[in-house]
Amino acid sequence: MSTPLMNQLGIVKRNIERADRAAAEHLGRLGSATVHEAMGRVGLLKPYMRPIYAGAQVSGTAVTVLLHPGDNWMMHVAAEQIQPGDIVVAALSAECGDGFFGDLLATSFMARGARGLVIDAGVRDVRILAEMGFPVWSKGVSAKGTIKATLGSVNIPVICAGALVNPGDVIVADDDGVAVVPAADAARVAEVAQKREDLEGEKRARLAAGVLGLDMYNMREPLARAGLKYID
Amino acid sequence: MSTPLMNQLGIVKRNIERADRAAAEHLGRLGSATVHEAMGRVGLLKPYMRPIYAGAQVSGTAVTVLLHPGDNWMMHVAAEQIQPGDIVVAALSAECGDGFFGDLLATSFMARGARGLVIDAGVRDVRILAEMGFPVWSKGVSAKGTIKATLGSVNIPVICAGALVNPGDVIVADDDGVAVVPAADAARVAEVAQKREDLEGEKRARLAAGVLGLDMYNMREPLARAGLKYID
Amino acid sequence: MSTPLMNQLGIVKRNIERADRAAAEHLGRLGSATVHEAMGRVGLLKPYMRPIYAGAQVSGTAVTVLLHPGDNWMMHVAAEQIQPGDIVVAALSAECGDGFFGDLLATSFMARGARGLVIDAGVRDVRILAEMGFPVWSKGVSAKGTIKATLGSVNIPVICAGALVNPGDVIVADDDGVAVVPAADAARVAEVAQKREDLEGEKRARLAAGVLGLDMYNMREPLARAGLKYID
Amino acid sequence: MSTPLMNQLGIVKRNIERADRAAAEHLGRLGSATVHEAMGRVGLLKPYMRPIYAGAQVSGTAVTVLLHPGDNWMMHVAAEQIQPGDIVVAALSAECGDGFFGDLLATSFMARGARGLVIDAGVRDVRILAEMGFPVWSKGVSAKGTIKATLGSVNIPVICAGALVNPGDVIVADDDGVAVVPAADAARVAEVAQKREDLEGEKRARLAAGVLGLDMYNMREPLARAGLKYID
Amino acid sequence: MSTPLMNQLGIVKRNIERADRAAAEHLGRLGSATVHEAMGRVGLLKPYMRPIYAGAQVSGTAVTVLLHPGDNWMMHVAAEQIQPGDIVVAALSAECGDGFFGDLLATSFMARGARGLVIDAGVRDVRILAEMGFPVWSKGVSAKGTIKATLGSVNIPVICAGALVNPGDVIVADDDGVAVVPAADAARVAEVAQKREDLEGEKRARLAAGVLGLDMYNMREPLARAGLKYID
Amino acid sequence: MSTPLMNQLGIVKRNIERADRAAAEHLGRLGSATVHEAMGRVGLLKPYMRPIYAGAQVSGTAVTVLLHPGDNWMMHVAAEQIQPGDIVVAALSAECGDGFFGDLLATSFMARGARGLVIDAGVRDVRILAEMGFPVWSKGVSAKGTIKATLGSVNIPVICAGALVNPGDVIVADDDGVAVVPAADAARVAEVAQKREDLEGEKRARLAAGVLGLDMYNMREPLARAGLKYID
Repeated sequence: MSTPLMNQLGIVKRNIERADRAAAEHLGRLGSATVHEAMGRVGLLKPYMRPIYAGAQVSGTAVTVLLHPGDNWMMHVAAEQIQPGDIVVAALSAECGDGFFGDLLATSFMARGARGLVIDAGVRDVRILAEMGFPVWSKGVSAKGTIKATLGSVNIPVICAGALVNPGDVIVADDDGVAVVPAADAARVAEVAQKREDLEGEKRARLAAGVLGLDMYNMREPLARAGLKYID
Repeated sequence: MSTPLMNQLGIVKRNIERADRAAAEHLGRLGSATVHEAMGRVGLLKPYMRPIYAGAQVSGTAVTVLLHPGDNWMMHVAAEQIQPGDIVVAALSAECGDGFFGDLLATSFMARGARGLVIDAGVRDVRILAEMGFPVWSKGVSAKGTIKATLGSVNIPVICAGALVNPGDVIVADDDGVAVVPAADAARVAEVAQKREDLEGEKRARLAAGVLGLDMYNMREPLARAGLKYID
Repeated sequence: MSTPLMNQLGIVKRNIERADRAAAEHLGRLGSATVHEAMGRVGLLKPYMRPIYAGAQVSGTAVTVLLHPGDNWMMHVAAEQIQPGDIVVAALSAECGDGFFGDLLATSFMARGARGLVIDAGVRDVRILAEMGFPVWSKGVSAKGTIKATLGSVNIPVICAGALVNPGDVIVADDDGVAVVPAADAARVAEVAQKREDLEGEKRARLAAGVLGLDMYNMREPLARAGLKYID
Repeated sequence: MSTPLMNQLGIVKRNIERADRAAAEHLGRLGSATVHEAMGRVGLLKPYMRPIYAGAQVSGTAVTVLLHPGDNWMMHVAAEQIQPGDIVVAALSAECGDGFFGDLLATSFMARGARGLVIDAGVRDVRILAEMGFPVWSKGVSAKGTIKATLGSVNIPVICAGALVNPGDVIVADDDGVAVVPAADAARVAEVAQKREDLEGEKRARLAAGVLGLDMYNMREPLARAGLKYID
Repeated sequence: MSTPLMNQLGIVKRNIERADRAAAEHLGRLGSATVHEAMGRVGLLKPYMRPIYAGAQVSGTAVTVLLHPGDNWMMHVAAEQIQPGDIVVAALSAECGDGFFGDLLATSFMARGARGLVIDAGVRDVRILAEMGFPVWSKGVSAKGTIKATLGSVNIPVICAGALVNPGDVIVADDDGVAVVPAADAARVAEVAQKREDLEGEKRARLAAGVLGLDMYNMREPLARAGLKYID
Repeated sequence: MSTPLMNQLGIVKRNIERADRAAAEHLGRLGSATVHEAMGRVGLLKPYMRPIYAGAQVSGTAVTVLLHPGDNWMMHVAAEQIQPGDIVVAALSAECGDGFFGDLLATSFMARGARGLVIDAGVRDVRILAEMGFPVWSKGVSAKGTIKATLGSVNIPVICAGALVNPGDVIVADDDGVAVVPAADAARVAEVAQKREDLEGEKRARLAAGVLGLDMYNMREPLARAGLKYID
């Protein structure tokens, strides 16, 4: 079960097994919160990962890249590995807030069919990225540029914002954050998540009509048993 | 004068004394910055409490709830205590950034007449909440869900983002932050705040016409007395 | 070469040498990221300086002000020193997140011709500031007001968000952050930055057409030499 | 139940009801973690409050002081209110990390019989304070000094590091943090806490002998019922 | 290569393959910085993981545990899986700073032969832990206790402070931080690290004698080639 | 007065004007807090700069070095510029927490006569550094190593932790933090600081004897005038 992350600097894996396309699309429509719940409340990147503009909701299969602080050389290597429907997931070997990505790389990524970028670092040209409609989830925004001098790797397992992402995994990103679903589990999780979602419509209608969650979820009895006391 | 915060876990206070409705409305129109000044520069929650979308400006009477990390059970108990014009103020017994609140609870809160939520934790479904027009001031956004297993309390005094909030107090929240006005002081503070506000219109006109604050506030003499020196 | 920052409390320098107006305008059109690159990847304020609303892109000559925590008295002194085309740069003698600036001061600054404010502290009335179209880059937003009791200085060299700003320097601020260009270097930097920018249009077109950065920048050979390995 | 915190700037309350001395001493011997548990897992200041040196464990009755950022004038006013066995608890009206307290004030506080200081801000002269054996729990260390210009209050209820402290409450501080026990509850909490402590000695001996908590606390059955699975 | 982290809640793996004992000991003597360099500058947990007391330097094989915020139930389950020479590595499913571990659990862990604890959360009873000589690397210190209500897992792969740790991996922890070495690589890394270490003694002697790194590492020529200029 | 910080990458200034040695020694005996007060409450580096071990109090003349994130090449260049009595001040062109400095460099710096290091980044081998008695003030500790690939500069003006440091300035560092005194002001500041210090001994004695600051500083009248009210 061991995942040897080391000894993999300077490696580009060309053939990766991408999650089922339909499952990835399905998960994207459900959103990060529902997907995370369907997985058993795991699978989220840390909440400091925020979208550079509001309203985007995307999903795709991960092309991963491991970068070193202040160096975005491997982003160009990663671009070549992008296939339509992919989302690039960029991890850092140590914390760095520089702007590793801007409008030129976004132009290239879009030309390759990328749906977005998730990067555990900074990004720049954010106004233009918003105009281009290329969504990015990042740790922050910074005009600080990077150099191109150090090898990292592409399509190896990476830890991005506290979550393990394997190449080919499904990424679901929206205003609530970013979820990752292992490729092999995508179809199953989509099914479970859809069931959750199906139940929500009815619940929403009842709550909108004034029914209390206390009654709808039958909470009064367990609350009383736990010792809840009402006073005046 | 002692406020015993302990020994109150698992308690729901049904009858609370809400601040005067007209005073609450009045304070809401004046905004958090003006209200805080009128109170003598106190009464603000910490500035990390930010709105999930720009432009909302609301006021209401506090229904308070004390939650435990990772557990939103008491939000459902709080829902039942909401009356039209209330704002729910959720405090945590220890720091937690999970998403305690989403669109289903918002639907329920809105159906009960709540004007918004102030929560010293995370929130999710933020895009839908913005579409619903249900404003939330929170410590952050997180897709991470919570469980329903531990008793907290409703309508006890709580400390939310560094401020003491008693049930029934007036909450004023806008893009600048969140202010809390003790219920008994609401009318008086509204009056003082209105006087500040009345003076501002005239000041704004004079400043817009090019009059300097140095002259309008008669600052030149005290600045000179304090030792200010102009050099070329 | 020594810049004596001390012994300057309580000083207002009236005559400062402002950078060339045309160069300042030129730099503003190029944006903070391009300008920073043209300077040799230096000259940025720390990335925690964020705009209070998205989309503003301004440049101007710096009027500097050194404030003490919780005290905005010198902002009024600074207002008098503003000339059309200036941007006020406010530094703090110690960290403070209070709201030092609101709509009244903004009205005054605008009347004097200021293009914006860069402040290493908090700001308030942000909704009104956005409506007024007065851009501010700040460390945060806070409704907390300040007093007027302590002397600072105006138009002395200051360190704002980690960058040295001399009065008259060019400030370039946009959604990516804030850059400062020494007045004496403005024209030269604008020229270098423009050359960078000129090259970008062609690059963008090629990348949009599907050309890879790997090929456009001739990276394949240096990557191989550095030891990059492709595996299947 | 309302605690009006406002309208109290510039007030010094001379006669406060201090918690029972014996109970305070008793709680101090038990430590902050045990006391917090005995209170039902509440009553702790935020964990960013750290001792300036390791190994101190003190308790005392609170003399409270509300300070404004950058201004320690009221510390001198508070000094006069100190009685032997007190601990000064200093809250700030807004966040500030300056060094509000040093060896001169410590000399004065010690002469009055203070057992320590808990301050939601910075402190300085820490090496000398350690040599003097005057323990301080603070948000940080800073050589930055303060001025003496603004009124605060002494012996009003304050919120210090997220916890409500009323004058006279018991403060328990050690390397694990700071707990506050309402004066009226001190004796009862001490009794409960002592019972917890009494049980710990025996538990410790059994665990040291190799007995597992799984068995000592009879956890195996509830774990199995919750669904725990052992695999090889 | 995929590491399915999900679907593993509520699982305890009893038989794990531990790294070679001798290699683990060897790595411990070399320290986290040398080990990290020998691995190619990877393998470190985030630097916010700090020891609760200075001077400890340990190594051991990882027993991993995944905890939920505010709940340390699984620490007792983990205790049973400890073998002499192990270090427990505790990861959290979401950020939490509570004190998950104190002197009673430490007594149990020591009785089982554990060499230390690495936990991405808080810890308490730190004075006693220091007296016991049980080293802990944690995110912080907090007197806040936890409950025992939610299943996690033991001996699954976990992400602790940004690093993937598989059960059986070697943990090296000292005042500089915490490194993790995959079990299969332990012997090889120890060998490489020892070679680095062997070279350091001679270097240290030369540097102490006044030889400059510029000369010892032959840096003058590459520096000149890179464009370094000396001015007077 | 302009200090052109740009266009100086890749420069080593060999001849710098160091502050008067006696003044530097004198300031070191007075400590950072007293020196900062004597300068008019300016001149401090940000308080996140902490010593790696307690108890060191040093002063010296600054040899400055500008480093890039993840790259400590210039530290070796700086070593050659050290003269006995210097303190190296290392600034970063962008935020980075890596461990730029360890026992080998410390050995070299000590051999050259350095009194310590102030670095706005991380440091490692801290246990050995403590044993060597080489004090370091840093932003943190990290085992993460750096590379040697990018030019920075030595002995140019730098901004370190928010303060401008010119080569030759006096650095005063102790447990309270780090102060910088411009070389030209060292003697004057030492004199002012000594006067402050001379007054403190007498004050301390009076406070220890129970005299209140209220009386010693004649605060009662201004407090009353400001509106302070005593209640019972």
